[in-house]
Amino acid sequence: MTPKTYVQGKSIEEAKRISGMDEILKVGSNENVLGASPRAKAAIEAALDELHLYPDRQEDILTDKLARRMGGGLDRRQIITGNGSCDVLRMITQTFIGPGKKALIAAPTFGMYELLVEMFGGEAVNVPLKRHAADLDALAAAIDERTSLVFVCNPNNPTGAVVSHAQATKFLNKVPAGVVVVFDEAYVEFVEDPDFPRMTEFIAAGHDVLVTRTFSKLHGLASLRVGYGFGPMALMERVRRHRVHFNSGRLAFLGAAAAVDDEAHIQRSLEMVRTGRRYYYQAFDEMGIHYVPTQSNFIFLTDLPLDAAFICDEAMKRGVILRPTTPFGLPDNIRITIARQHENERVVRVLQEIIQLHARQNGSQGAG
Amino acid sequence: MTPKTYVQGKSIEEAKRISGMDEILKVGSNENVLGASPRAKAAIEAALDELHLYPDRQEDILTDKLARRMGGGLDRRQIITGNGSCDVLRMITQTFIGPGKKALIAAPTFGMYELLVEMFGGEAVNVPLKRHAADLDALAAAIDERTSLVFVCNPNNPTGAVVSHAQATKFLNKVPAGVVVVFDEAYVEFVEDPDFPRMTEFIAAGHDVLVTRTFSKLHGLASLRVGYGFGPMALMERVRRHRVHFNSGRLAFLGAAAAVDDEAHIQRSLEMVRTGRRYYYQAFDEMGIHYVPTQSNFIFLTDLPLDAAFICDEAMKRGVILRPTTPFGLPDNIRITIARQHENERVVRVLQEIIQLHARQNGSQGAG
Repeated sequence: MTPKTYVQGKSIEEAKRISGMDEILKVGSNENVLGASPRAKAAIEAALDELHLYPDRQEDILTDKLARRMGGGLDRRQIITGNGSCDVLRMITQTFIGPGKKALIAAPTFGMYELLVEMFGGEAVNVPLKRHAADLDALAAAIDERTSLVFVCNPNNPTGAVVSHAQATKFLNKVPAGVVVVFDEAYVEFVEDPDFPRMTEFIAAGHDVLVTRTFSKLHGLASLRVGYGFGPMALMERVRRHRVHFNSGRLAFLGAAAAVDDEAHIQRSLEMVRTGRRYYYQAFDEMGIHYVPTQSNFIFLTDLPLDAAFICDEAMKRGVILRPTTPFGLPDNIRITIARQHENERVVRVLQEIIQLHARQNGSQGAG
Repeated sequence: MTPKTYVQGKSIEEAKRISGMDEILKVGSNENVLGASPRAKAAIEAALDELHLYPDRQEDILTDKLARRMGGGLDRRQIITGNGSCDVLRMITQTFIGPGKKALIAAPTFGMYELLVEMFGGEAVNVPLKRHAADLDALAAAIDERTSLVFVCNPNNPTGAVVSHAQATKFLNKVPAGVVVVFDEAYVEFVEDPDFPRMTEFIAAGHDVLVTRTFSKLHGLASLRVGYGFGPMALMERVRRHRVHFNSGRLAFLGAAAAVDDEAHIQRSLEMVRTGRRYYYQAFDEMGIHYVPTQSNFIFLTDLPLDAAFICDEAMKRGVILRPTTPFGLPDNIRITIARQHENERVVRVLQEIIQLHARQNGSQGAG
């Protein structure tokens, strides 16, 4: 059996080759098109003479800042950093999954959960989304004596929909002891919904919830590989045993700590995403393209008038990298990262062109 | 039971606090005191505008270069990169160790092997060194039906001694099928011994050997977290299944690829270590301090005239970070990273001072 592997979005290099263009627009991997936090860049540049050094106190400085920022009585020792949130998800899966154990996954979603569960010899069971977000009632009903872990990506990737605080509360009250619920909040900073779940309240209330977050999205630090997780002290102590020492570098900690404080870059990025959402809603409404209202920095298209793979291939020829959601098990959808206004307009122009091209081809075929 | 954790060397920050000095000499963690490869620094600086991007082809470029450099018929697909060689060691341990399985470790050595074996539920059995290097005869004799992995750090950390090609050949011919031998070559570039084992020959000959290496030592890129491993294609395919996608960042690959080509920095670093070795041998001979002749960028002191912890504490007060080898299970030794001439001279001066101080204190006690 060939093991499953993660399929990442297309690269700029590939798009250049296919399109023959220099100006590639990559809106396929939910990176922040504004780039990294300038403060993070400056911190890294200032630390180039420390490239040869192992990290020392840099991690504590970062987790202190995160604890203060999140509040809710969170202690620094309840936060763990990892080589991207994937590494934290690896530690969590390694802690709670093994042969004979089962993980429930609200899916379609980020493919990493399933890969990790299978890597550690457990069984991954997908529980279908409801209205594009986790179906918490179905998840609660699916828990059995073998279930040790539940994965909820919130906002969900690739759909952008969320579960609410009230829904999560109701769900957590039904989850039996011995089952840990992981909320992957990679996109949490983009959420505008005031009813979004407040994780520190669940932790304070004694629920066995673990949260993962990343510096790769809002903060634009995907190159550095740094993410973090937090949860109740007792669970975090168990997770920490599966941390490999030196899993993030000095540069990653320094960059991340600077990014946390870069309020200007954070606000600029959030404003771009909010403006982009409104623009896309209006543009797609006018074009008759269906989408899921998003709480994230991407938008998920549904019921496309054309084959999604065809659209993405044609967009690549025009220098625009979209994300067909085939690797998520959704061959009929596309996920588009929200970018700057002129870039979003380029995406819309390219989509219009592709649809018109197809209509003409169909029309001429019809007339032939 | 409190789980074991990795104890890393002391930090510059701590030394500043203890010594009250600004000019700290850190020779406790085997970092390259010349800093990172200038080419790597330049590559990273040039890529600061790509901080927000996930890696694309950068890994293939690096593994292509490594395969060409190592030769011996090695294919790029036989090389795997990781978030430091510790991540590669994690993947290897995860692949071959589990409950009921046993790993033999030529010890005292780098503490990570034991931590990883226990993390994955296996049993770690230490097989004592012989003349400060792996005792391959004892390792061969200790293999039983539960043994699936053998760890040989070569040159060994913290002793700096090596096993030879002939010794390794004889050993591998005795290792039964189903047992994988890991040679951790973190310090391979510093070896001058012409009889050092040639791993690509063992791989070509069909032995189940896996090799790990790092960019954290010679290349001075400890901050970036990038290491690699290689071995027979069939084993590497199994190891690769335990790789977590996105485990190294774009910056790490770019920096490492630039460092591989930085012949000037490599030669400068090797020359510094060679000169430093000769200086230390002579200085310690004159002082009557015993040491193990080293094939690495550090030197291991034995039969110290004073308590090792006392020496390291006193050195810290003088702004010099040495590495007491207590975490290695060697409370009576010290490991010193070889640095530039004036820095090595400072280490010798500080050691002389501490020894004289102690002699005076003992003398006055004797007279009191």
